Amino acid sequence: MTTAGVDAMCVSIGSDLPYLTGYRAHISERPTMLVIDGSGVTTMVIPTLEAPRVTRHDDVFSLEVWDETDDPMGIVDSLLADAGRIAIGSQTWSRFTLDLQGRRPSSTWIDAEPIMSSLRIIKSPAEIDRLRAAAAAVDGVADDINGIRFSGRTEADVAREITDRTLAAGHESVEFCIVASGPNGASPHHTASDRVINMGDAIVVDFGGYQDGYCSDTTRTFVVGEPPSGFVEAYAVLLKAQTSASAFVAPGRKASEIDAHARAIIDAAGYGDRFFHRLGHGIGLDGHERPYLVDGDDTVIEEGMAFSIEPGIYTPGEWGMRIEDIVVATASGVESLNTSDRRIRTVS
Amino acid sequence: MTTAGVDAMCVSIGSDLPYLTGYRAHISERPTMLVIDGSGVTTMVIPTLEAPRVTRHDDVFSLEVWDETDDPMGIVDSLLADAGRIAIGSQTWSRFTLDLQGRRPSSTWIDAEPIMSSLRIIKSPAEIDRLRAAAAAVDGVADDINGIRFSGRTEADVAREITDRTLAAGHESVEFCIVASGPNGASPHHTASDRVINMGDAIVVDFGGYQDGYCSDTTRTFVVGEPPSGFVEAYAVLLKAQTSASAFVAPGRKASEIDAHARAIIDAAGYGDRFFHRLGHGIGLDGHERPYLVDGDDTVIEEGMAFSIEPGIYTPGEWGMRIEDIVVATASGVESLNTSDRRIRTVS
Repeated sequence: MTTAGVDAMCVSIGSDLPYLTGYRAHISERPTMLVIDGSGVTTMVIPTLEAPRVTRHDDVFSLEVWDETDDPMGIVDSLLADAGRIAIGSQTWSRFTLDLQGRRPSSTWIDAEPIMSSLRIIKSPAEIDRLRAAAAAVDGVADDINGIRFSGRTEADVAREITDRTLAAGHESVEFCIVASGPNGASPHHTASDRVINMGDAIVVDFGGYQDGYCSDTTRTFVVGEPPSGFVEAYAVLLKAQTSASAFVAPGRKASEIDAHARAIIDAAGYGDRFFHRLGHGIGLDGHERPYLVDGDDTVIEEGMAFSIEPGIYTPGEWGMRIEDIVVATASGVESLNTSDRRIRTVS
Repeated sequence: MTTAGVDAMCVSIGSDLPYLTGYRAHISERPTMLVIDGSGVTTMVIPTLEAPRVTRHDDVFSLEVWDETDDPMGIVDSLLADAGRIAIGSQTWSRFTLDLQGRRPSSTWIDAEPIMSSLRIIKSPAEIDRLRAAAAAVDGVADDINGIRFSGRTEADVAREITDRTLAAGHESVEFCIVASGPNGASPHHTASDRVINMGDAIVVDFGGYQDGYCSDTTRTFVVGEPPSGFVEAYAVLLKAQTSASAFVAPGRKASEIDAHARAIIDAAGYGDRFFHRLGHGIGLDGHERPYLVDGDDTVIEEGMAFSIEPGIYTPGEWGMRIEDIVVATASGVESLNTSDRRIRTVS
């Protein structure tokens, strides 16, 4: 906060609050907000009916509980005292920021994200252990997917089975489970639908969730029976891009350089216009966080940064393919947390 | 917008966007934002990789697709042109609002919630049909809970079974499933934990999710074997407060008056300090929306408003109890969408 020149910081929903306090707030019209003033006094403003959920850490923060007819932003305002420049959590609902701005017309408000990212972007060994365990859980599910029947079932039905297996593998929640078959594979953020999977379909399966508070995220690509025309050739390029970019990760590289490394391989093979998203995103308490592996993000990789490497190639109207691992930069290079078979998987 | 005196409106995550366009955006660092300018020109700014998810309605909005290295807030800024007073979606991440404020220092920003609520607070017959179907689904599950074994199982295990049954009953998602046993029942927003349920425990079960895009939310209270001391007497008061407040709902009443009606019954019986949350909340595309049944919300009830009636009584360290139905104000009174047995349910 001193480095960023802010007098106070407010964080609410999202992962900054659990990072600082161990408590993840409900996303709700009833605000929970941690106020850190310039002298380091830290107060969690929280609704009465959620206060029992908090594990107290009296050495870290005190609680200021508000009842249903109280004015929580009034409490936050008074805790901010004479702070002039205030950082506010990136994901805070705008209604609360606008409310505070209205009460404090002479304060300046900035996004707390750069401050919080500077803490969160380097994962501790204990955090990496949790990411590794979450990755191992989804790897086990991914390996077992080969035994699932795909043809004749809807995407949604397959997604439900993968979700159940992921929960059984130890996840406390599954946040997304993309099962994108045939032409739906060309929509990278497709929602599993009622489309019935056919022989000859390629299927992108991208799933993940929370285990012990940390996120998993992996993608593998399947084919029912014989692959579509041109698929095998493109997949060889994709696999080379994914594995080569992972191996390219090391302290001192820039995030944008890793993206460019994968993109150059796909471009050279003539598929450049069909890989139209960034190579990857950081991961930790949030599924997506810094750094972003994309042109323009020149974050210098350091030991302990964790992020996805997930190139894809998409042919609209026909098929899609993507391979995704979570990797962690080590002192000398990289560790891939996901290790399940990356080759095309033939299923029935 | 004209009534509110705004020149333009931006809506992003939350339910305002699907209400206006049929499309629910991913909650993400990649913003999706609908911009409505003063002449009614409506543009959805959306990431390339999510554009395939949108069902086009060219008569309602056009798409402005941004690639990974584009500047989406720059696009929004240009669409806003010379708008001076701009409403922005209540749940929009603050980072985007702060970004836009920085680009447009002379614009005034207000919360879009009052504008959008004025549209969303009265449900159409088609919306009420969906709420009714969602309520019927959870009622079926609630009635079948009597056959579930509670004792010897963890809260989380029971919650998992109720979740599975709710999905099987037709919900596309379960957003929460509180199973709060024994002393945990006194924490209204308790998360189902590893506590093992014992004989003699009271258990608050509060669950709901999405079906056909609309929310369900119901609470029933169970007892394993013999109820704890004082429980039956308190429950009789709670049931009277819940049913009497539901029956009190009618066009012309104020939201706050309905809350006061239930509270008076609980106060008169001596439990007033143990009912420390509002009586209820509106429901529709969001699980919580206007009106709020709480002192200070003087919304006058009109035909088509839908909200919960959910008083609770909580004894810290011992037990909790709550009964919750979703009701809809009709032309002449009220319809309770939830109709499952409201009495104490004895389970094994």
